[in-house]
Amino acid sequence: MKINTGFAEKILTKFIKEELGKFNYKKGILGVSGGLDSTVCAFLAAKALQPENVIGLILPYGEASKEDVEDAELVIDKTGISSFTIDISPMVDAYYVQYPTERKILKGNKMARERMSILYDFSEREKALILGTSNKTELLLGYGTIHGDMACAINPLGDLYKTQVRQMAEHLGVPSRIRKKIPSAGLWPGQTDEQELGLSYDVIDKILFLLVDKRKLPEEVISEGFSEKAVNRIVSLIKCSEFKRKMPPIAKLSQRTVGLDFLYSYDRDK
Amino acid sequence: MKINTGFAEKILTKFIKEELGKFNYKKGILGVSGGLDSTVCAFLAAKALQPENVIGLILPYGEASKEDVEDAELVIDKTGISSFTIDISPMVDAYYVQYPTERKILKGNKMARERMSILYDFSEREKALILGTSNKTELLLGYGTIHGDMACAINPLGDLYKTQVRQMAEHLGVPSRIRKKIPSAGLWPGQTDEQELGLSYDVIDKILFLLVDKRKLPEEVISEGFSEKAVNRIVSLIKCSEFKRKMPPIAKLSQRTVGLDFLYSYDRDK
Repeated sequence: MKINTGFAEKILTKFIKEELGKFNYKKGILGVSGGLDSTVCAFLAAKALQPENVIGLILPYGEASKEDVEDAELVIDKTGISSFTIDISPMVDAYYVQYPTERKILKGNKMARERMSILYDFSEREKALILGTSNKTELLLGYGTIHGDMACAINPLGDLYKTQVRQMAEHLGVPSRIRKKIPSAGLWPGQTDEQELGLSYDVIDKILFLLVDKRKLPEEVISEGFSEKAVNRIVSLIKCSEFKRKMPPIAKLSQRTVGLDFLYSYDRDK
Repeated sequence: MKINTGFAEKILTKFIKEELGKFNYKKGILGVSGGLDSTVCAFLAAKALQPENVIGLILPYGEASKEDVEDAELVIDKTGISSFTIDISPMVDAYYVQYPTERKILKGNKMARERMSILYDFSEREKALILGTSNKTELLLGYGTIHGDMACAINPLGDLYKTQVRQMAEHLGVPSRIRKKIPSAGLWPGQTDEQELGLSYDVIDKILFLLVDKRKLPEEVISEGFSEKAVNRIVSLIKCSEFKRKMPPIAKLSQRTVGLDFLYSYDRDK
């Protein structure tokens, strides 16, 4: 699980630069939440593209997360990227006054999708490509909102487990205030990822690494000392979230179907 | 381009039923715009799942499209599915008073993403799977909003060209008022697809069919009597919209990367 952070930095900054080039973009844009993942992505983007070519959007829900906004501002400050701050509460509340709910997850998803919508709007206005901030742990567990925080044009962090993002943060000189924060999706006050998932990222990542990277069977992982309950929970989360990691299935009727036989760009080399 | 509509109906209703079963859902939900594609999808869903298990959301922007709302209500009426009508203008306008724009496409995208966000909210509230309504023509040209109208859990229409959706509409007994409407994404008053694309669906579909289904080279399609300008425009639209048909690229760092080597569900058969 220990990575060569210097090498990873090279790969990831090169990835950001090259992918932007493919899409013919010079600027990158991302949501900056004040959390670890978007901070690491902002630091990498600033290195890859120069700070003046990176835009960070700070998208708080009203006054609910003042501390996170302060942390986000610290990231803007440290990286030198430009930023806009937009309160998403007027848009989200306009919906929830009509369709109130007690279920926090519903409101959290609406918030994540409003942020996506604003990011894509700014992407078009500023001609800046959207950099994703979902890490490998989140992608494998499906711990994120589809068409919300999981939406992006390219994702530099998607092959780093949460504990590896922490290693990158230290390497990149991310302020310890942010590195030491308790991870939270920020969907409601007091939410923490590890409480919601029922396991620590340290344990989750070790189990995921054995299952996914090492291709071990659940029973093998259990025999390495992890609890049956934890391993089964992880396997079940991976299975149930498969739909978040792929395009929606299309009913096949013709000889060449989008996403099945027609997977590649048409005549790419011509 | 002529399809066996009876056979297609069987395949598509079976697809809807089976995919819902895989996800353990009994109900389907879709946005009903009053246009051809969502109408055909609503008719198919009502046949596949029984009308009482299908929900149609009518999501107008204020009073801008009264006629479309009437057509959508006709669809609800004819299929017997249940429905909710929600005006999206309060949410969309709450954003645009802060960030006004003259660019109609920006507002159109924001509207499409607000509709997606409400559909996903209702999907969760009603435990109903989202049925997509993007046809093959739209998917290939990228004529739709990513994370907007292109977002869905499953897509029954994605392998039917627009002109084939018309054949299905006739077969399913869709009211002629809807079958004869001029296709429009409805993003602003007076918008029509064919004007915006600069070509008729009839021509577009024939060119796409030759390029994609018949794997002809652009010069071969031109030699069959289509204008060079039209063929080049279609090829360029296919190329430029590739990103809308696949998951975002992830920077590869490990041996097994989501979307690259880790494509399948973990241990599906266990």
